[in-house]
Amino acid sequence: MLMVDIIRKKRDGGKLSAEEIDFFINGYVKGEIPDYQVSALMMAIYFKGMDDEETHLLTNAMLHSGEVLDLSMIKGFKVDKHSTGGVGDKTSLVLTPMVASCGVSVAKMSGRGLGHTGGTIDKLESFKGFSTAISNEQFIENVNRIGISIMGQTKNLAPADKLLYALRDVTATVDNMSLIASSIMSKKLAAGADGIVLDVKSGSGAFMKTDEDARLLAEKMVSIGKLAGVRTMAVISDMDQPLGRAVGNSMEVKEAIETLKGNGPEDLNELCLTLGSYMVYFAGAAPDRDSAYAMLKESITSGRALDKFAEFIAAQGGSACDVYDPENLPKASEALDFTAPSDCYVSSIMSEEVGNACLLLGGGRRSKEDVIDLSVGIYLHKKVGEKCASGEKVATLYGNDKKKIEEAYERIKGAYSFSDSPVEKNKLIKGIVD
Amino acid sequence: MLMVDIIRKKRDGGKLSAEEIDFFINGYVKGEIPDYQVSALMMAIYFKGMDDEETHLLTNAMLHSGEVLDLSMIKGFKVDKHSTGGVGDKTSLVLTPMVASCGVSVAKMSGRGLGHTGGTIDKLESFKGFSTAISNEQFIENVNRIGISIMGQTKNLAPADKLLYALRDVTATVDNMSLIASSIMSKKLAAGADGIVLDVKSGSGAFMKTDEDARLLAEKMVSIGKLAGVRTMAVISDMDQPLGRAVGNSMEVKEAIETLKGNGPEDLNELCLTLGSYMVYFAGAAPDRDSAYAMLKESITSGRALDKFAEFIAAQGGSACDVYDPENLPKASEALDFTAPSDCYVSSIMSEEVGNACLLLGGGRRSKEDVIDLSVGIYLHKKVGEKCASGEKVATLYGNDKKKIEEAYERIKGAYSFSDSPVEKNKLIKGIVD
Repeated sequence: MLMVDIIRKKRDGGKLSAEEIDFFINGYVKGEIPDYQVSALMMAIYFKGMDDEETHLLTNAMLHSGEVLDLSMIKGFKVDKHSTGGVGDKTSLVLTPMVASCGVSVAKMSGRGLGHTGGTIDKLESFKGFSTAISNEQFIENVNRIGISIMGQTKNLAPADKLLYALRDVTATVDNMSLIASSIMSKKLAAGADGIVLDVKSGSGAFMKTDEDARLLAEKMVSIGKLAGVRTMAVISDMDQPLGRAVGNSMEVKEAIETLKGNGPEDLNELCLTLGSYMVYFAGAAPDRDSAYAMLKESITSGRALDKFAEFIAAQGGSACDVYDPENLPKASEALDFTAPSDCYVSSIMSEEVGNACLLLGGGRRSKEDVIDLSVGIYLHKKVGEKCASGEKVATLYGNDKKKIEEAYERIKGAYSFSDSPVEKNKLIKGIVD
Repeated sequence: MLMVDIIRKKRDGGKLSAEEIDFFINGYVKGEIPDYQVSALMMAIYFKGMDDEETHLLTNAMLHSGEVLDLSMIKGFKVDKHSTGGVGDKTSLVLTPMVASCGVSVAKMSGRGLGHTGGTIDKLESFKGFSTAISNEQFIENVNRIGISIMGQTKNLAPADKLLYALRDVTATVDNMSLIASSIMSKKLAAGADGIVLDVKSGSGAFMKTDEDARLLAEKMVSIGKLAGVRTMAVISDMDQPLGRAVGNSMEVKEAIETLKGNGPEDLNELCLTLGSYMVYFAGAAPDRDSAYAMLKESITSGRALDKFAEFIAAQGGSACDVYDPENLPKASEALDFTAPSDCYVSSIMSEEVGNACLLLGGGRRSKEDVIDLSVGIYLHKKVGEKCASGEKVATLYGNDKKKIEEAYERIKGAYSFSDSPVEKNKLIKGIVD
């Protein structure tokens, strides 16, 4: 088999076979097939696409290119959740203890933030002493004992995806549905869960800018998951404005805790209940989605979800006290308000710009090596459709450096648009792919 | 400037600027831009193409990536000729002495054969002692003294094209008109001639399989030449069957000599007169194409063209005697006839298969390192449209190894198709792009 023939086949619109896909993925990981042939193939795939079967085969080849987590030591049905990434997305922090408190095993791998989007691990590190750098054994033990654990991605998980992603990043071949879907799903499937719930973000602050693209990606990923024999569904959710009101690591943790107490923002709460209801239902802990939804609501009102969160934080080195008293979490020294220029309604908030403002404050990473300031962030008092009186607070920036706050202020100012007449609120759940 | 942005721009159908093209060609030659980004760009160009201006700019960047031959020391107008390659194509051997004998300076760079197509240098080496490995000074001196010289390509001519071509070859990005045109023209323009006459082959044995593709390539190359300020035209000629009747190095030289004596096959003769008339006319040695055509015919009947050929061979280390007595050229020891199965007409001859038969006999190269047997080849007694009596010789294979001859025989048998009813002859000149 020759790599050049595989490239030519795809270039001419042909369908790659399992043997061809395995040949190129294995050869690439072994260093036998050079980058320049793989990048040419990626560009051919960019133009000619891959059908569901090819995408499944590519995912499978990447998934088996390294370690595949064996979660068979965990009792019962294991569910995982993945978000394609957005601004203010603290869903995992709220969702996982809610679901775990309903008796469902949550074994989750998470990542760190890069660019304008945050990462669950960074957020969790707002708890002093908390660590996701735990062994596979510890991970499994925690899930068995308290029903929940979150770990960082192990180095040897889907190495083909790591190589491919780095190559695609510098060859303008990232933006292809099949390649994006197989990249995400190879890692998710290698993490060994029995059920996967996907949150595909759609809008200005998301990777998928349109609902059509988000649906296409959701469908590809759900199809891959099902073909791999894993219970999979996706929610398409709004990222035309940030999720919730807090953006920035410790600020998002505080908002997550408020949500676990029943005082969270409406959109975050709704998204957690929707995603969670599928997780609980998939795991068989409820007879149907409606019962699962009700169980999750009860986990909030009863305080069980908050307790589960505290238990989880403590199990991975943090202090449960910080959950019950979030004032212990990192806090910025300075604040600056952005106020409404007149009586008006918020007509839009560019999520990406809010994320960039947080980045400017020091709350994000430009490159993987950057150290982040967990205390800084932005609080959005007003979201799309909400009415503002002239001079009323629209957003508050929290930081530790006046110059940075001023820079970020300009970004926030630019991120908001206002209207004199009433504006409809954004629809949060834009679709379900099941 | 970032290479990934250049790739993305082309991927999205954008037009590359002079700065972008120079950036990537210079960076690639210097080793600053890696193969994997260049191959991704090549694939994007494969899908999105380049317009005439971009193609001209790419050619220009490659042409200036290394040495550009300075032929200003050669008196008068210098013409070069290039063929896109075919089977039995000994045009250069006949054409260059014809044109030179009309007082036009012919300064030509030639290549060696690879795969099923032959190369002028290999053919010329049928003359014992003949060499094209001469210095630029010798090349210029010969053109000034006798009006003709042929040299091998110098190593440092258009190095960007060498790098790019090698990369395209292994990444399935060869088949793009702009890339093919700029590859050919960058080398031709770097060779410094004032006028270029192109022979674009079209048909089963050519790189361009259809007349439409051949015309497109011809138009691209002529446009590039003109934009570079060089007098350029192209003839589109038939390669649905081999040119002339002899295929194989020394056999083709013999046929070329016969043609210079006025006894050549009709198609070869016609092609040389057509291409040559443009060369003579471009150089200003004749007031119009018709006069140029007549001058060339006279160069044959008078014997001046043959004498010029002998002078040329002698000037580069061969013996003029071998031109006048071609029986001295390498000759194979064995022969095998392929005869007509019945009374019939030849309906087609697959050129590529005839080339492959010659390769099997040892007359070609599979890889650049192969040593070739100059004596072997195939003589086509019958060409398309010609009548054969049952048992009459259709082709004769000449070789030095019985087993190889038998293998090649099967190829020749497979290359020919016959018809019971009369078949129209192929049209040789399929178009002119001027």
